[in-house]
Amino acid sequence: MSTIVAVDTFDLRFPTSRLLDGSDAMNPDPDYSTAYVVVRTDDDGPDGHGFVFTIGRGNDVQVAAIDTLRSFLLGHEVEPLLADMGGTWRRLVHDSQLRWLGPEKGAMHMAVGAVVNALWDMRAKRAGLPLWRVLADLTPDEIVDLVDFRYLTDVLDRSEALQLLESARDGRQDRAQRLVAQGYPAYTTTPGWLGYDDAKLARLSGEAVAAGFGQIKLKVGADLDDDRRRLAIARETCGPDVRIAVDANQRWDVDEAVRWIKELAAYDLAWVEEPTSPDDVLGHASIAERIAPIPVATGEHTANRVMFKQLLQARGAQVVQIDACRLAGVNENVAVLLLAAKFGVPVCPHAGGVGLCEIVQHLAMFDYVAVSGTADGRMIEYVDHLHEHFSDPVRIDRGRYVAPTKPGSGAQMLQTSMREHAYPGGAAWAAG
Amino acid sequence: MSTIVAVDTFDLRFPTSRLLDGSDAMNPDPDYSTAYVVVRTDDDGPDGHGFVFTIGRGNDVQVAAIDTLRSFLLGHEVEPLLADMGGTWRRLVHDSQLRWLGPEKGAMHMAVGAVVNALWDMRAKRAGLPLWRVLADLTPDEIVDLVDFRYLTDVLDRSEALQLLESARDGRQDRAQRLVAQGYPAYTTTPGWLGYDDAKLARLSGEAVAAGFGQIKLKVGADLDDDRRRLAIARETCGPDVRIAVDANQRWDVDEAVRWIKELAAYDLAWVEEPTSPDDVLGHASIAERIAPIPVATGEHTANRVMFKQLLQARGAQVVQIDACRLAGVNENVAVLLLAAKFGVPVCPHAGGVGLCEIVQHLAMFDYVAVSGTADGRMIEYVDHLHEHFSDPVRIDRGRYVAPTKPGSGAQMLQTSMREHAYPGGAAWAAG
Repeated sequence: MSTIVAVDTFDLRFPTSRLLDGSDAMNPDPDYSTAYVVVRTDDDGPDGHGFVFTIGRGNDVQVAAIDTLRSFLLGHEVEPLLADMGGTWRRLVHDSQLRWLGPEKGAMHMAVGAVVNALWDMRAKRAGLPLWRVLADLTPDEIVDLVDFRYLTDVLDRSEALQLLESARDGRQDRAQRLVAQGYPAYTTTPGWLGYDDAKLARLSGEAVAAGFGQIKLKVGADLDDDRRRLAIARETCGPDVRIAVDANQRWDVDEAVRWIKELAAYDLAWVEEPTSPDDVLGHASIAERIAPIPVATGEHTANRVMFKQLLQARGAQVVQIDACRLAGVNENVAVLLLAAKFGVPVCPHAGGVGLCEIVQHLAMFDYVAVSGTADGRMIEYVDHLHEHFSDPVRIDRGRYVAPTKPGSGAQMLQTSMREHAYPGGAAWAAG
Repeated sequence: MSTIVAVDTFDLRFPTSRLLDGSDAMNPDPDYSTAYVVVRTDDDGPDGHGFVFTIGRGNDVQVAAIDTLRSFLLGHEVEPLLADMGGTWRRLVHDSQLRWLGPEKGAMHMAVGAVVNALWDMRAKRAGLPLWRVLADLTPDEIVDLVDFRYLTDVLDRSEALQLLESARDGRQDRAQRLVAQGYPAYTTTPGWLGYDDAKLARLSGEAVAAGFGQIKLKVGADLDDDRRRLAIARETCGPDVRIAVDANQRWDVDEAVRWIKELAAYDLAWVEEPTSPDDVLGHASIAERIAPIPVATGEHTANRVMFKQLLQARGAQVVQIDACRLAGVNENVAVLLLAAKFGVPVCPHAGGVGLCEIVQHLAMFDYVAVSGTADGRMIEYVDHLHEHFSDPVRIDRGRYVAPTKPGSGAQMLQTSMREHAYPGGAAWAAG
């Protein structure tokens, strides 16, 4: 048996605020960061890598939160932990003392996500397969074993989840082949950051269309006149057939959101993302009803499966945007994929940041092969930043994610990049 | 002008798990703890004390979260910070990078609460008044200036809040006098911890009635037969005129909660507290509708004002239980008091833990004098633990909180207690 002998954490930050990459109406100057964790064993098998994505200050708090979980892993045998990821998840999430810091939300919950994802990375590497395929090869019983149905059973219980998975079992192999051959649809947020000037917006929008993307996304919500002008530029550049979504990053109150969106409706919006507080389920439902048929998209800041359950119950989200690192890792995202499948709502993962594309693509591809069984109306966000720091960076071909083939979850960063972006001692910061 | 020269933090823990004080269906063995902060200035005026309450592991993460806020205070002039607590709150809560760790929930949000409360403690001490009186002496305009109405305006905006406060302005002085003369109603959870045996439950229930409490509370949710037996003992001991509330501490799923509560309804329940996930607004609403007329009480784990707004909108809470340290301090609690007043729902604060009674009594008393204008159906939780560690411990007289008269918020711990409970080096832990 192999034993976990180290849970090493790292505070890694990228000085992205210098170029206003990632700027939006709520986040004017993010420094993309990861609270990074490596789980090491005493055998020759691969390590497990995971992280929490943050935007700068507070990344040290996130590292401290991951550190508290060390005792759940150190000295434990690897195989039973990896073989029972449902049980492992419960032990981490339901520790009664640590749970108090959430419960199941904020820094402590995301820390669990980093550790859970690191274990999945290790499991996939040891299986010699990309994570999406490890998940898609599980039986329906094995998949529901990953899910904690606590607080979900009034809407979805184990037996109904099993039925959903059984009904998607036929065709898994065909879809996996199609995925490998054709990839998975993507859209790009690269053109739309609020800090970019009009010329850069036009140039990048044109490049996105030329590269084959069927949808782009623009940040909005700081100034209505600016939004109108920028949407006009994007629509003019893209033509009528490329979808344009907008993202307010929680900028508005409920009534304000409705008024503002109606002012922008003429530009044919693919969806409106994060119109208000991510906690406001009833607010999202009210907005969605009043701006229909424009869909509301949300989820990158949705704290846990209980909040996703309610967004679906209340019809507050017509597009579910899971995030690989906001929830408590792969297991809780599987729960959300099942909830979305039950409600027939498409999942279009949030990505960008640093490393989010690399991980979350596996979840969308698993969804396609084994859960929803379709890619219709689905696509993964793509931003062309910081991929060069990862050992298996995403590949985009004609506006689609190419299915990863290397073993693991995609989370592993290059050692040189880790050294250079260590905060505050790394070369990237010394130069700043 | 005076300047802030130190923001000192402390990891303080009490080994309460040794006696099962505080044990319930979700928290079998808490070690009551505080991530404690002292804000110091370069003048001779008093310091400000605040803290986050936790139950053990993770208290160090909470300290790390408070540490990130140091730069918002160090070197700043004290008077403008204290004079504009609304602006100070916004700067702390809306820092775009730190906000990512919530947003507005979990460790980072509670850290803001500790700092905000420490500043209120300082302001009250410098005014030479107890916090409740500082707040109750503010004009309606000054009170609404404390509140961030972002994400609330679909339900409550500044002008409506002003009207509520204006209509409670008459009678403020009478109510303040009555409060000083008669105190504020309390109920006690002292008898009801799940780890206590039947004899201890009966003895403590009897003592509570003899001490003049009109309501006690029992922990439930681990085992239905145990709950029935313990409720029978409590009801037998207390007689029919003392109210008995039960608290499930988030133990149940929605349908399970309804079934379980119906089994206990014969014991005449004053309220059912935290029946399910604190995030499940729609679940609370469903439970409340199906167990009516038994009221649902919740709030001690409600993350922010947006969640409280929805609990009230959806009629998921018939009793609002604010917590002094879960929300972002006094300011956000003022927002919740205003929301509850608008909906006519009584606020019965959560307390216990360590130091929670000391702080939260000020908020309930402010509510009585200046917001709701009534104590009908209101009471503050009381538990008889750990008060001896505070410089101005709560006083209970015939089942009522005696209105504090000393300057400050009540948060200040004795220096000897702080030394002894420093974790892990203090004497309380060396002896363990």
